[in-house]
Amino acid sequence: MGSSSLPLNSIAMACQVVNAAKVATAFINEVRAAIDASAASPLLVGFLANDDPAARKYAEWTARTCQETGIRFELRECPRTELEDRIVDANEDPAVNGIMVYYPVFGGPQDQYIQNTISFSKDVEGLCHKYRYNMYHNIRFLDKAETQKCIIPCTPLAVVKILEFIGVYNSILPYGNRLHGRVITIVNRSEVVGRPLACLLANDGAKVFSVDEFGIMEFHRGEGIKLKKHEVFETKVTLAEALAKSDVVITGVPSPNYKLDTSLLKDGVIAINFSTFKNIDHDAIKEKASIFVPSIGKVTVAMLERNLLRLQAYQASQSA
Amino acid sequence: MGSSSLPLNSIAMACQVVNAAKVATAFINEVRAAIDASAASPLLVGFLANDDPAARKYAEWTARTCQETGIRFELRECPRTELEDRIVDANEDPAVNGIMVYYPVFGGPQDQYIQNTISFSKDVEGLCHKYRYNMYHNIRFLDKAETQKCIIPCTPLAVVKILEFIGVYNSILPYGNRLHGRVITIVNRSEVVGRPLACLLANDGAKVFSVDEFGIMEFHRGEGIKLKKHEVFETKVTLAEALAKSDVVITGVPSPNYKLDTSLLKDGVIAINFSTFKNIDHDAIKEKASIFVPSIGKVTVAMLERNLLRLQAYQASQSA
Repeated sequence: MGSSSLPLNSIAMACQVVNAAKVATAFINEVRAAIDASAASPLLVGFLANDDPAARKYAEWTARTCQETGIRFELRECPRTELEDRIVDANEDPAVNGIMVYYPVFGGPQDQYIQNTISFSKDVEGLCHKYRYNMYHNIRFLDKAETQKCIIPCTPLAVVKILEFIGVYNSILPYGNRLHGRVITIVNRSEVVGRPLACLLANDGAKVFSVDEFGIMEFHRGEGIKLKKHEVFETKVTLAEALAKSDVVITGVPSPNYKLDTSLLKDGVIAINFSTFKNIDHDAIKEKASIFVPSIGKVTVAMLERNLLRLQAYQASQSA
Repeated sequence: MGSSSLPLNSIAMACQVVNAAKVATAFINEVRAAIDASAASPLLVGFLANDDPAARKYAEWTARTCQETGIRFELRECPRTELEDRIVDANEDPAVNGIMVYYPVFGGPQDQYIQNTISFSKDVEGLCHKYRYNMYHNIRFLDKAETQKCIIPCTPLAVVKILEFIGVYNSILPYGNRLHGRVITIVNRSEVVGRPLACLLANDGAKVFSVDEFGIMEFHRGEGIKLKKHEVFETKVTLAEALAKSDVVITGVPSPNYKLDTSLLKDGVIAINFSTFKNIDHDAIKEKASIFVPSIGKVTVAMLERNLLRLQAYQASQSA
């Protein structure tokens, strides 16, 4: 409405800033409708076993979002030394449909052990080995009949859904190859977000430059679309070279000090930031990008809720 | 013989230095006899996917030890980007009885992902989640009939076998409680050795102080022997207090700079070092300890071979 008075030039050149809430809406509505139509509202249990204020804030946010969609959410607090036993109890309790943990708990590799103690049938975050293995190997279903889709980790899945929403996935191409031809740089290669995301996008046909502090790796299918799953290569490509080729740049550096050098980006690039810190300067990116998504948290929580509904359905089919 | 000429006093006061090779001998002989008596020598595949000279040395050492006992060992080298696919191939190859990886590969949490890609039926190192979970929960058998013992990670198991050899386990006490009354400090709480070891010893009845750079945790069964598995507690006990109470001290700090302060030890303590570095000064400890085990590597490899034979037997019973 208001933009109709702007000259055509400036409309065409304006960077579109896409708010995560806008992307989340359709998913949230879907979740709410499903819960309204169902007899039993699912129960999500969140475990808080640390003193981290950021973790508590995330827990409060989960509680609020669950309330909005009609999901029952129960925050269970305990000392970290009791966490594993409490998770085992929740695994065995048929009243619990989904389990999540607010990390870090111990920090380091013991937290990865904790991720694997959550039963895959209740793992809403999709962080246990079974789901990660299936994701890396492009195994998309839990069963041979292909009725039960695998759970995908929430944050990488949120990025995929945002890429679909903003038109980076091309629905003219066949399912499973809708990123063919796209070049994407991801600045983060953590086991929780960056590496799974690189693999998901490569499995969907993209060429991905995966960047961390030690170097760059390439995730893609090699030449053509012969391979069923992505391949990974060490590469000598520099960040400047990678960004110069990239249609999409995705940042997720967990530090207030990291700032993406926007001068290296292609004109008209699509930029997404999933770090809780502002890795991309909001003013500078608007001079370069066609589309900018400054944060993704609301979509992540929507994916968490979507995963919960799936798990609830799988549990019901198991006990039926 | 030679010592018969020493005065009685000095014999009684001498610290016994126990060489790992001496502890390993019985196990190595057992493995060799089992292989000699069997139709098929087991095949162990080791994956080397890094440029670390220490890893290559360990690989060469495995090869030599396997040759001595009649185990077929095959070193497979590949770029780290191909490791996972090569492991999957070995998982599926019925000719392969055991799989091990020389770490670090990627370093950090991706290596823990790799640990879990090895099939539990071939995991000679006992590092996959299933074995670790069972160990922490004191689940000692894979099957309900209790015919197949769980695989225990090699290094912690080597320490247990050394503690049995040097008389810390009291065979007068019932199996599963033979460390009751013992206080043990472990300086290392890694996911690969220190934490599993603390749990194993606590599950066998000991009170364990588990020390890392961030603090001390206690692993024990609480009061008495009511509990089936260990409990873990945060503690404010200092290292000096822990060592003053400890019958056994076990060091495993992966740094050439760490030296245990032997002045804090009880007179007559038993000291074991599993670090590749000398965490305990050899001269100083001989003034304090009744028994000192300066390294454990040979026992660790013996445990690896023992685990391999077990897995081979389980595989045979599966395919029978």
